[in-house]
Amino acid sequence: MSLKRSTVQQLLSSQELDREVLVKGWVRTRRSNKYVAFIAVNDGSVIHNLQVVADAEKFPEDSLKDVATGASVAVRGTLVASQGKGQTVEIQATEITVLGKADPEEYPLQKKGHSLEFLREIAHLRPRTNTFGAVLRVRHALAFAVHEYFNKNGFYYVHTPIITGSDAEGAGQMFRVTTLAPEHPPRTADGSVDFTEDFFGKATNLTVSGQLEGEIAAMALGKVYTFGPTFRAENSNTARHLAEFWMIEPEMAFYELEDNMDLAEDFLKSLVKYALEHCADDLAFLNEQYDKELLGRLNSVVETDFKRLTYTEAIEILKSAKQKFEFPVDWGTDLQSEHERYLVEKHFKKPVILTNYPKEIKAFYMKLDEDGRTVRAMDVLFPGIGEIIGGSQREEDLTKLTTRMAEMHVPTEDLWWYLDLRKFGTAPHSGFGLGFERLVLFVTGMANIRDVIPFPRFPKNAAF
Amino acid sequence: MSLKRSTVQQLLSSQELDREVLVKGWVRTRRSNKYVAFIAVNDGSVIHNLQVVADAEKFPEDSLKDVATGASVAVRGTLVASQGKGQTVEIQATEITVLGKADPEEYPLQKKGHSLEFLREIAHLRPRTNTFGAVLRVRHALAFAVHEYFNKNGFYYVHTPIITGSDAEGAGQMFRVTTLAPEHPPRTADGSVDFTEDFFGKATNLTVSGQLEGEIAAMALGKVYTFGPTFRAENSNTARHLAEFWMIEPEMAFYELEDNMDLAEDFLKSLVKYALEHCADDLAFLNEQYDKELLGRLNSVVETDFKRLTYTEAIEILKSAKQKFEFPVDWGTDLQSEHERYLVEKHFKKPVILTNYPKEIKAFYMKLDEDGRTVRAMDVLFPGIGEIIGGSQREEDLTKLTTRMAEMHVPTEDLWWYLDLRKFGTAPHSGFGLGFERLVLFVTGMANIRDVIPFPRFPKNAAF
Repeated sequence: MSLKRSTVQQLLSSQELDREVLVKGWVRTRRSNKYVAFIAVNDGSVIHNLQVVADAEKFPEDSLKDVATGASVAVRGTLVASQGKGQTVEIQATEITVLGKADPEEYPLQKKGHSLEFLREIAHLRPRTNTFGAVLRVRHALAFAVHEYFNKNGFYYVHTPIITGSDAEGAGQMFRVTTLAPEHPPRTADGSVDFTEDFFGKATNLTVSGQLEGEIAAMALGKVYTFGPTFRAENSNTARHLAEFWMIEPEMAFYELEDNMDLAEDFLKSLVKYALEHCADDLAFLNEQYDKELLGRLNSVVETDFKRLTYTEAIEILKSAKQKFEFPVDWGTDLQSEHERYLVEKHFKKPVILTNYPKEIKAFYMKLDEDGRTVRAMDVLFPGIGEIIGGSQREEDLTKLTTRMAEMHVPTEDLWWYLDLRKFGTAPHSGFGLGFERLVLFVTGMANIRDVIPFPRFPKNAAF
Repeated sequence: MSLKRSTVQQLLSSQELDREVLVKGWVRTRRSNKYVAFIAVNDGSVIHNLQVVADAEKFPEDSLKDVATGASVAVRGTLVASQGKGQTVEIQATEITVLGKADPEEYPLQKKGHSLEFLREIAHLRPRTNTFGAVLRVRHALAFAVHEYFNKNGFYYVHTPIITGSDAEGAGQMFRVTTLAPEHPPRTADGSVDFTEDFFGKATNLTVSGQLEGEIAAMALGKVYTFGPTFRAENSNTARHLAEFWMIEPEMAFYELEDNMDLAEDFLKSLVKYALEHCADDLAFLNEQYDKELLGRLNSVVETDFKRLTYTEAIEILKSAKQKFEFPVDWGTDLQSEHERYLVEKHFKKPVILTNYPKEIKAFYMKLDEDGRTVRAMDVLFPGIGEIIGGSQREEDLTKLTTRMAEMHVPTEDLWWYLDLRKFGTAPHSGFGLGFERLVLFVTGMANIRDVIPFPRFPKNAAF
C-alpha cells in the first residue's frame, strides 16, 4: 500500500490522531522492558525525536536487534496520543524495517556526551547530534533571514567574484589560485615564475571581500548585497578565525554614515528576532545545554537601542575607566578586544556602534571626515563577540581617494575600474560587512567558530 | 528641510500625487526645447526611468549643463500626473543638484546601442545599462526564489567547503589553492614539491561540486541544499562555460529517483513562475530586445508536464529519427547537444527528463540498476539550453559503491567519510545539481553565459 511519508516535524505538530503514518529516520536510542520497546527516531527535520512504541508481542526483542543507535529505519504504525511524559504523540508500530544498520561496535556516536573537540574529528557524523543539528538549523534560518530581509527592503543580491586578479584591499593574506605545474612552473627570462602562462593570464587569488565589486553594483542598482565565501591565509589557530568563511556585504548608493548605522542596527535586530521566532526549540536546547544566558542576551539585543558614539568619545571613557587594561589606550591606537568588551559589557551594557576612527587605522576607501584626521567608519560591537560588523561611508571624491591610496601605498593600476566609479556619476555611498559565522556564534551561543560551520578550514586542516 | 528620499520604483507605483518628493539617481538622457527640459533619471530599483520636468524659466539651459548622461543627481519637486506618453507620473522639478558629473567626452556609455562584447570589457559600468540592469534583477529574483522554495519545503541550506582536500568526484579539472612560494616551493628529498608545508598540510583545490558533502548533511538533516560557487579549470572558451559559476545542489534522504524527478520538475517550474510574476518589466524588456519568443517559452515550461523517458528509449527515438546527426547515436554513447535538442525541440517539443543511463558514462556514486548495466541517473533537458539539471539516486550500498569505485579507479582513501555514510545508517537518497547561470540564461533569453554573471571568469580573464 502506498502511504506518503511524513516528517517527524509534521507528526509532532499534527492534530490528526489515530491514523496510519509512515516515518523514516535514524534511531537515536532504544530501550525496552518485558512488554514494550521505545525507539526514539529522528529525521533531522526538528531537534525532537518521535517515540515509536513496539509491543513485545508483535516485536520480540530478537526482531529489533538491528534497531540500534544510528541505524536508519522505516516505521509504519498508528499515530496516537502519548501515554508517557515528554511528548504529546507517539507511533504505535505495526511494521519496522531497518534500511541501514549501524554496528554498535563501530558507530562512533554510540554513547552520549562526546566532546566538541572529538566531534570536530568526525565532522561527517556530527550533524547527527542534537547540538550540531540545532546549530545547522539555526544557521539555515539566519541565512534565509538575510535573504528575506534584503529582498523585502529592495536590495539586489550580487555574486561578486571568488577568484580575483587584484590584491588591493589588503584585508589579509591571500590564497593563490593556479593551474601552473607546481614542480616546474614556466619561467620568464629572469627566472621568475611566468604568470602570463597561468589560467587567467596573471597571478590570481581567492577574494578577501566582495566590497569593491559590490560598490560597482550599488552605483548602478542602488542597493545591493553580497553573501558569499571569503578567505584569509593568516596562520591563525584560534577559536575565532577561519581560513574560509561566509560574509554578507550590503552596499548602498546615496547612503551616508547615519543611514548605514540605521541599516546595520535594524538588520541585526531583524536577524536575531527571526531566529528567536523560527528556531525556538533549537535555541531552547542550546540555552539549556551550553549557555543559560543565551535567550536573555538575544532578547536584549532585539529590544535595546544600540549606543552610538565616536571613537574619540570611547577613548575618553576607556582612559577614565577604573579597570586596568593589558594594552594601553590612547587616541590613535586600535581598540583591543578587552577595550571593546569593557565598553559593551561593563560600561554601556548594550551593543555599541563606534564611529569616526583615526584614518591611520582604517582602510583607504573610507570617507575622510572634515577634520582630515578621522574617517566615517563604523564598527558594531556585540557582547561576547566584539566586532560583529565593520563598515563605513566610502570616499566618493576621486582626488581625496587617490591621495589616500598614494599615502597608503595602494596601487591604483589594478583598481582603475574602482576609480572610474568616482569619475562617472559618483555619489555618496556606504556599506558594511557582517561575518556570517560571527553572527551564528552569537545566536547559538557556541564558543568556537569551528563549531558553527559544517566543514571548518584552518591551518593544516581541510578534511572532508 | 528633511525630506525622505523615494526610489523610482516607489514613485512610479505611487497613487499619492501632488506632493513634494526627493529622488536620487543617474541621468540616462536629457532633451530639451525652448520651454522645458526632460531628464530621465534611473536609480536601479526598476528598469523604468522617472521623467523629471525642468521649466526653462527656473532652470536655464546653462544651469543644466552638468545634468548629462551618467551624472548622479538629487532632484526635489512635485510628483504630478504626466502630460506626456510613456509614463503616468513625473516630477516637476524645484531643485536639481548634480552630485557627481560624468564628462560626455569620457563616459563610455554616452551613446546608445553598445554591443554586448564591448560591454563585457567595461563590466564595471555595464550594470548601468537597461540590459544588464534587467539581467541582474532577474538573477537576484531567481536566487531569492531558490532560497524561498527550499525554505518553504523544509530543506536546510548547508555551506559545503570551497577549498577541498579531495579530488574525488572527477567532475572536471581543478584549480590548486596554495600559499607556497611560487618561485621556490619547499621540496622533499626526492625533489617533488612538499605539500605538507602548504597551508592545509596537503595539496588543496577549489571545489567542483558540493554534492558529496551535501550527502553528509542529508544523512543527518533529511533534506538539504547547497548554493555556492564551483570551479572548472578546463580551457573552454565558449558561450556556455565559465571557470567560476554558482551551483544549486539539493540532496534528500529517503528520496528515490521518482521523487527526485518530481522535485526537479516542481522546482524548475516554481523558479520560472516566480520570475514571470516578479520580473514582469525586466522580462518584457528582454523579450522585446533580444528574443521575441522568451515569454512564450517561459510560460510553456510552467504549464507543460515534462516528458520522462529512459536513455534506452531515447536512443531508439534518435536512431529512427529522419534527421542526420553529426555524431552517430548508439546505445552506450553519451548524448551530444544535437541529440538533446532534437528530443526537446523537435520530437517532444517540451522539457525532457532522461533516466537510467549506461553506467559507463556516469559518475561512480550513482545507484546501479538491477540489470547491472544502467544507473539511476536523470538529466533534465531544456529548449535552447540542453542539460539544465543533472542528478541521480545515489548508491547507498557499501559493497556496490566500493566495487564501482574500484572499477572506475576512484581512490577510496580520501573518501573514507563518504563510505562511512554507507556503513552507518545508510538509506536511499537522491539529489541533483542545477547550474545557476544556465537557469539565468534560460530565463533571461541571453545567448552568452558571460552576460548573466556580473564578473565572468574564463581563460585569460579575471578582470575586476
